[in-house]
Amino acid sequence: MRQSFHELALATRGRGLREFTADVERWIAENKFRDGLVTLHIQHTSASLLIQENADPDVRRDLDAFFARLVRDGDPLFRHTAEGDDDMAAHLRTALTAVSLSLPLHDGRLALGTWQGIYLWEHRTHPHTRRVTLHFIGE
Amino acid sequence: MRQSFHELALATRGRGLREFTADVERWIAENKFRDGLVTLHIQHTSASLLIQENADPDVRRDLDAFFARLVRDGDPLFRHTAEGDDDMAAHLRTALTAVSLSLPLHDGRLALGTWQGIYLWEHRTHPHTRRVTLHFIGE
Amino acid sequence: MRQSFHELALATRGRGLREFTADVERWIAENKFRDGLVTLHIQHTSASLLIQENADPDVRRDLDAFFARLVRDGDPLFRHTAEGDDDMAAHLRTALTAVSLSLPLHDGRLALGTWQGIYLWEHRTHPHTRRVTLHFIGE
Repeated sequence: MRQSFHELALATRGRGLREFTADVERWIAENKFRDGLVTLHIQHTSASLLIQENADPDVRRDLDAFFARLVRDGDPLFRHTAEGDDDMAAHLRTALTAVSLSLPLHDGRLALGTWQGIYLWEHRTHPHTRRVTLHFIGE
Repeated sequence: MRQSFHELALATRGRGLREFTADVERWIAENKFRDGLVTLHIQHTSASLLIQENADPDVRRDLDAFFARLVRDGDPLFRHTAEGDDDMAAHLRTALTAVSLSLPLHDGRLALGTWQGIYLWEHRTHPHTRRVTLHFIGE
Repeated sequence: MRQSFHELALATRGRGLREFTADVERWIAENKFRDGLVTLHIQHTSASLLIQENADPDVRRDLDAFFARLVRDGDPLFRHTAEGDDDMAAHLRTALTAVSLSLPLHDGRLALGTWQGIYLWEHRTHPHTRRVTLHFIGE
């Protein structure tokens, strides 16, 4: 049994979903991990991790459009406004989704369904570089 | 230290919550797992995993009723409509809940509270068979 | 490779966010854990776990204010009302957030970002004592 750590720095172009399944799979392949548990953790409070459909791009567009309507930028309810209209909305969108994900790895393959991709969901309107910690335990 | 993988195929009767705690516990008992970490991952983007109250069935009914009002089937906001009115709503309901769960196992017992059960939440209106990957690491 | 279990009993003062990062870090330091995976699970269906900003207290206030508006206490939609107006709302707020979290531990430090803290989010209006199971696997 062994473990391994890695950190990804992922650039975003502002609000929206960016797939990075291939980055995780490359790390797995390079280290020849076979069977174990892969955990991802994003080190931010205004961006999140999501596993969602990677076929029709309209799904990502609709996800973002729905969340933009559910959590309004500049909602007068918010007091935390120093960093701009999208700041508190970004914290709430993060709270409603996930910051850590755990995925079994079996025979060198992540236990993802046919249509599942791993996404970084940027919730701020401006581009950022987001750090995601990867951890593997297994063999 | 050892690990083990298993896959459950769970039939749903359309939208709603189906408990499967007993399926997970049976797998644990049959393999005599004692202490470790159990991870569950659902391989779909329109059904999710939830730990919720397993006493009053009204809780499940209310969970589903609230989510049906929060995320409207056929919302004119949606562009991803090819598979029907409930399709994009199902993706959103999945994004708002969870696709993976990790539970400590101690002395052969899952660290569930008295009222906690493990549920598959079907978000499509029609019945489906859903695959859930189970992973154990421990001894 | 070794593992360890611990249970925290955390008192809340009613609805709101209580940080307990220091309790988790104390357990790690006392046991001299270096590298591995830390999993937290809350054994309740009306309180949840959240990783969020630990700088401006307005963020916690806004998180709670938004959720109180999104999920109304005493919503006439609810049938599960025996334990009071805040009961079903608490189940829904829990379903919308998380009951388990997994965090890599590297060189004795949790993979938390600069502004991330670990919170217990009490969703009931009255004070409770909440049990959180901690699990470590690694070395």
